[in-house]
Amino acid sequence: MEVPGFKAAAVDAGIKYKDRLDLGVIYSRASCTPAAVFTRNLVKAAPVLDSIGLLSRCEAFRAIVVNSGNANACTGDRGLEDCKKIRKRAADLLNCKEDEIFVASTGVIGAFLPMEKYLNGLEKACNSLSGDGLLKVSEAILTTDTRPKVAVREIDNKGSIIRVFGMAKGAGMIGPNMGPPQATMLAFVLTDAVIDREFWQKTLEEAVDSSFNRITVDGDTSTNDTVIGLANGNARNQVIDGYGELSKAFSSALFEVLQSLSEQIVMDGEGATKCVRVVVKGAATEEEARLCAQTICNSPLVKTAFFGEDPNWGRILAAAGRSGATFQQDEVDIRIGNVLVVEKGMAVGKEAEEEAAKQMKKHRFCVEIFLNAGKSDYSMLTCDLSTEYIHINADYRT
Amino acid sequence: MEVPGFKAAAVDAGIKYKDRLDLGVIYSRASCTPAAVFTRNLVKAAPVLDSIGLLSRCEAFRAIVVNSGNANACTGDRGLEDCKKIRKRAADLLNCKEDEIFVASTGVIGAFLPMEKYLNGLEKACNSLSGDGLLKVSEAILTTDTRPKVAVREIDNKGSIIRVFGMAKGAGMIGPNMGPPQATMLAFVLTDAVIDREFWQKTLEEAVDSSFNRITVDGDTSTNDTVIGLANGNARNQVIDGYGELSKAFSSALFEVLQSLSEQIVMDGEGATKCVRVVVKGAATEEEARLCAQTICNSPLVKTAFFGEDPNWGRILAAAGRSGATFQQDEVDIRIGNVLVVEKGMAVGKEAEEEAAKQMKKHRFCVEIFLNAGKSDYSMLTCDLSTEYIHINADYRT
Repeated sequence: MEVPGFKAAAVDAGIKYKDRLDLGVIYSRASCTPAAVFTRNLVKAAPVLDSIGLLSRCEAFRAIVVNSGNANACTGDRGLEDCKKIRKRAADLLNCKEDEIFVASTGVIGAFLPMEKYLNGLEKACNSLSGDGLLKVSEAILTTDTRPKVAVREIDNKGSIIRVFGMAKGAGMIGPNMGPPQATMLAFVLTDAVIDREFWQKTLEEAVDSSFNRITVDGDTSTNDTVIGLANGNARNQVIDGYGELSKAFSSALFEVLQSLSEQIVMDGEGATKCVRVVVKGAATEEEARLCAQTICNSPLVKTAFFGEDPNWGRILAAAGRSGATFQQDEVDIRIGNVLVVEKGMAVGKEAEEEAAKQMKKHRFCVEIFLNAGKSDYSMLTCDLSTEYIHINADYRT
Repeated sequence: MEVPGFKAAAVDAGIKYKDRLDLGVIYSRASCTPAAVFTRNLVKAAPVLDSIGLLSRCEAFRAIVVNSGNANACTGDRGLEDCKKIRKRAADLLNCKEDEIFVASTGVIGAFLPMEKYLNGLEKACNSLSGDGLLKVSEAILTTDTRPKVAVREIDNKGSIIRVFGMAKGAGMIGPNMGPPQATMLAFVLTDAVIDREFWQKTLEEAVDSSFNRITVDGDTSTNDTVIGLANGNARNQVIDGYGELSKAFSSALFEVLQSLSEQIVMDGEGATKCVRVVVKGAATEEEARLCAQTICNSPLVKTAFFGEDPNWGRILAAAGRSGATFQQDEVDIRIGNVLVVEKGMAVGKEAEEEAAKQMKKHRFCVEIFLNAGKSDYSMLTCDLSTEYIHINADYRT
């Protein structure tokens, strides 16, 4: 999987893991127009703070350096200094400016980066860049993930092709809430499109709001969540500026890429065996629809019922009732896997529940809650809560 | 354990379980002054709605009828009718009025009560009331609990004794949020005090706010949470009305009873192996202190780290950062089991973490987060999240 004009490489730098790729470099020959969103968690890792600073003062970017195994979070001034050292060394190796490089990290919070190993790995990576290196980077960014996550869409622009490629990592501490210069999910979007910076930022924010910001594994928003987009202009298309068909096609391709990555993250959620779409319909306001979906998606009782393949709609309704959404309990309908199990706040019956239980045996199914209190809808993706989640997280650091 | 003037009994009515007490009756010879708080969940079970109605129109009460195994929630008009039938039958059997009886339920949501079994059990219970029956009722109200929860305090009123007795159940769906006539935790408080109704209600609300409303197992607020207090006046004390030493002594005894029951609930939380007090100090506002404590106490990553006895303070700080509390990340200190592990937002060191890990091997320990952003504190109790929690809740109904 290649994106014209981009090269990449990943190496085993020994940052935390052994015999596993943990440091990646993505590099563009040409200057790139950036777009990015970062975690809204008040506690922000050093690379997040560093990137926010760069974005506010720089116009063009050339590279992303990313590691797994260590989040460089809660590392104070030294953490920020380490980011600068990385950018400086990468700039030397890549023959560009240190302000043209994003640094991103994911892993354990509160430990300093092992800089000697890091810089040695960085040198190896910069010396082995190639057009087909992106997939290796998508492996290097993984932590508790069990598989790499990539997606690509092509836009036909009057016979020539514009490519939108995305990679992401994230399996735990997933409850993204990202905003403009402000996910530990990481995602990088690379495109060879020519695109106006303002529109690139706006369309990325919108796509993140309707994709990554609508998924949850454990509801824990990370200190390191980051989405960085780089557009190198290699396709020499007419500038994508928000007007016309090409802009629409680009936004739509971008949304599809982020949507696919979002689903891949939830499907690979820590210990997850199910990917469930929760759709709240007919809420009084958009905010209430969101609160309701979010509360259901993060309820331990609902998530364990998903794991148990038990159509325990009482837990769903109880979560809705504590969410802050306003509705009449005798007006609520609930469908699980397209089977109506609750009508006007009461059980439809045993048969319906048996059928719903069958639907829940699938890896993916949908739960719809009709509040019948207004016109606002909200959709969100969650996974189940399994014994494996506990094993992974009780033993993560040790 | 007896409270003068109260009788009680519990039977195996076969409501859901076999060979297990599941229906209890508490009865007072004399008329009782009531006080009660109920779940703020928008979805309220039939017995909750029924009791709220009674409280608004009746002055005096004589009895509580309670069952486990079935919550009588999401049962519509029939659920309400069933409450009335239970009160009517109990009134006949106890020789009192049907409006003098509280009905309370806990168990599966969405099934109708098996009324024939229920009423047969009710008759048996009413016919076997005795002064020492309270402990049996405290067993009959259990669902996924592994042990009964009771507490008692005595107030010395110039040589004579006033007793405050409490029982509670609750192990899952514990994230109580109870308010005045509006908690599936159930708690019943019985006292032989003479007490003014208005003060009784006020002091109960205050005691609930600083006890049950500050615990969590899974953060899922139930449809059935109920605390009912009955004061039968048997002690013939000077009326407790909020003024003077006796009122202070009563409020303090009540608080201690509810606090003890709260701790017993968390210690017996579904799958729990740890009871952890999370204390947020120095928040900008009381609301921010509460949000911060609540977010940490309900974070799956924090709770699994407790289970793993891992002083993973990064998860604690990340939860604080997404809670809505405002603070400077480089101003935060964290103590685990009285060991300072974070100072000014950064790790104190390996030795401190090893010492904290030792402290975490205890069944009970304390986590303190010093935000250094203001003067508001908030304290909350939570348990860990274990593989056993998943087993219990993935298989609860099947």
